[in-house]
Amino acid sequence: MFFYLVDLFGTAVFAVSGVSLAFRLKMDAVGVLVLASVVAIGGGTIRDLILDVPVFWLTDNTYIWIVIATCALMIAFVKKPTRLAWWILPVSDAIGLALFAVMGAEKALRYGFSPTIAVLMGTLTACGGGAIRDVLAGEIPFIFQKEIYASACIIGASIFCFLHYCHIFPNSVNMIIGMGVVLAIRLPAIKWQLSLPTFSSST
Amino acid sequence: MFFYLVDLFGTAVFAVSGVSLAFRLKMDAVGVLVLASVVAIGGGTIRDLILDVPVFWLTDNTYIWIVIATCALMIAFVKKPTRLAWWILPVSDAIGLALFAVMGAEKALRYGFSPTIAVLMGTLTACGGGAIRDVLAGEIPFIFQKEIYASACIIGASIFCFLHYCHIFPNSVNMIIGMGVVLAIRLPAIKWQLSLPTFSSST
Amino acid sequence: MFFYLVDLFGTAVFAVSGVSLAFRLKMDAVGVLVLASVVAIGGGTIRDLILDVPVFWLTDNTYIWIVIATCALMIAFVKKPTRLAWWILPVSDAIGLALFAVMGAEKALRYGFSPTIAVLMGTLTACGGGAIRDVLAGEIPFIFQKEIYASACIIGASIFCFLHYCHIFPNSVNMIIGMGVVLAIRLPAIKWQLSLPTFSSST
Repeated sequence: MFFYLVDLFGTAVFAVSGVSLAFRLKMDAVGVLVLASVVAIGGGTIRDLILDVPVFWLTDNTYIWIVIATCALMIAFVKKPTRLAWWILPVSDAIGLALFAVMGAEKALRYGFSPTIAVLMGTLTACGGGAIRDVLAGEIPFIFQKEIYASACIIGASIFCFLHYCHIFPNSVNMIIGMGVVLAIRLPAIKWQLSLPTFSSST
Repeated sequence: MFFYLVDLFGTAVFAVSGVSLAFRLKMDAVGVLVLASVVAIGGGTIRDLILDVPVFWLTDNTYIWIVIATCALMIAFVKKPTRLAWWILPVSDAIGLALFAVMGAEKALRYGFSPTIAVLMGTLTACGGGAIRDVLAGEIPFIFQKEIYASACIIGASIFCFLHYCHIFPNSVNMIIGMGVVLAIRLPAIKWQLSLPTFSSST
Repeated sequence: MFFYLVDLFGTAVFAVSGVSLAFRLKMDAVGVLVLASVVAIGGGTIRDLILDVPVFWLTDNTYIWIVIATCALMIAFVKKPTRLAWWILPVSDAIGLALFAVMGAEKALRYGFSPTIAVLMGTLTACGGGAIRDVLAGEIPFIFQKEIYASACIIGASIFCFLHYCHIFPNSVNMIIGMGVVLAIRLPAIKWQLSLPTFSSST
């Protein structure tokens, strides 16, 4: 139940990031809805297709209604969307990233896949939706921008998997630690624009 | 049988829209074939993957041959492709949109999914292929352009689902009404460039 | 066993092409890893999803570790990546193309699908990963550039399927002939920039 609520919360914050981008690009209501849906449920959909488990929002429509409600609320209450503070898009994206990286890894472990697959699935769940959002909108995906992004997911999901096999803490504590690690890497990266070194600066 | 023919017709008109775009972008025969295939069978493929039913063109190769034949005919008979009337791309796209929005929703209902999922699947079947076509070709997806597009699918598929649960008319009549609604919204939108309001005009 | 090694080799050369593009675009370690993974396992993943067979790298993590090792080796040993010879990207891409076009077609035939589907799946396996790589990186997909590309896959996979039904040679010989045909078309196309005619030169 706790995880279900966390999952719905992650869906909502990712939808906020989709709506923010759609506002910035001056899209209409349908563009808002499409970008919000893609980022909120796109990564998990690809994960479920690859793991060959039922797609999570097919049988439980709550996820879809959360996205629609988030869009409706933001359209109704934000009068001058271009005045949305600049940090709303990256911070909502960071929170969604943290939640989905760990939830995605946990789902893969729960279905009996190896830790390698779990880390990959966590990263895909967290980054996949945002990458499709950016490609559809004609933006350079966050994942390829200079700041630390996918590496935060890889590290957080790896730490969660490691703790999972240590059996020291209950699973929920492991998940919260993993999520905290992602946020502890990604939020400073946004604030101070931290980035990994690239491989062609030598020329 | 009737629905099967409608489905093949939708495949052909969507293929025409893919070929038109490929001509406009001065692609070679393979580019023509790829864009035609993606728009004609891409949306339905994503729908079938998500619903976890066998992909429709795997066991019945007719769909693939329809796409190949459409490409061959258009390449053979259109001598000066850049002189294709400007409306061929949007109008063939609109007809495919109307057919696939309702056929996609009907397939989801037939497999026992909820009306919410049916409307979503109809919209995805109709708009998914075109969105991949536009992303691959480096164009802004139709779905994000100013004119009313995906909203026509949402409304048409919703009306079809509503009529489906009313049990007043036979299913084929419901489908034709739904398709008519999509066309009745989309065609005037093309002609007079109707659009939904965007959410940042206030600044 | 032989085919398995060929498959791993194809994965490695496709990963090299992803790393080369990432170096050229001055990406960081994660960008390198994402582009290498997408091109090396993306096409086969789409093939397996459509054929509804288990995704090949889920149960055998060797593929993923090959990609990671290729990235690590190239990062470690290539000191000045922008000095990578210009031909490394297209030639590694061509070798991967040849291997995957035939391996993809063979897998579809092995699961009992028609030759039409087999040729399509071979082309998708070979070209799909590269197309996603290019779209994510914001480049025009190779598949739409002027040179002969997907047509080489279509011809090579078709010849393999034809030989497969002739039952003259053992399957491994058929596969090597098919791969040779792809290379024999694609490598000269790179060297002399051969292209198919386009359909709007008449205006």
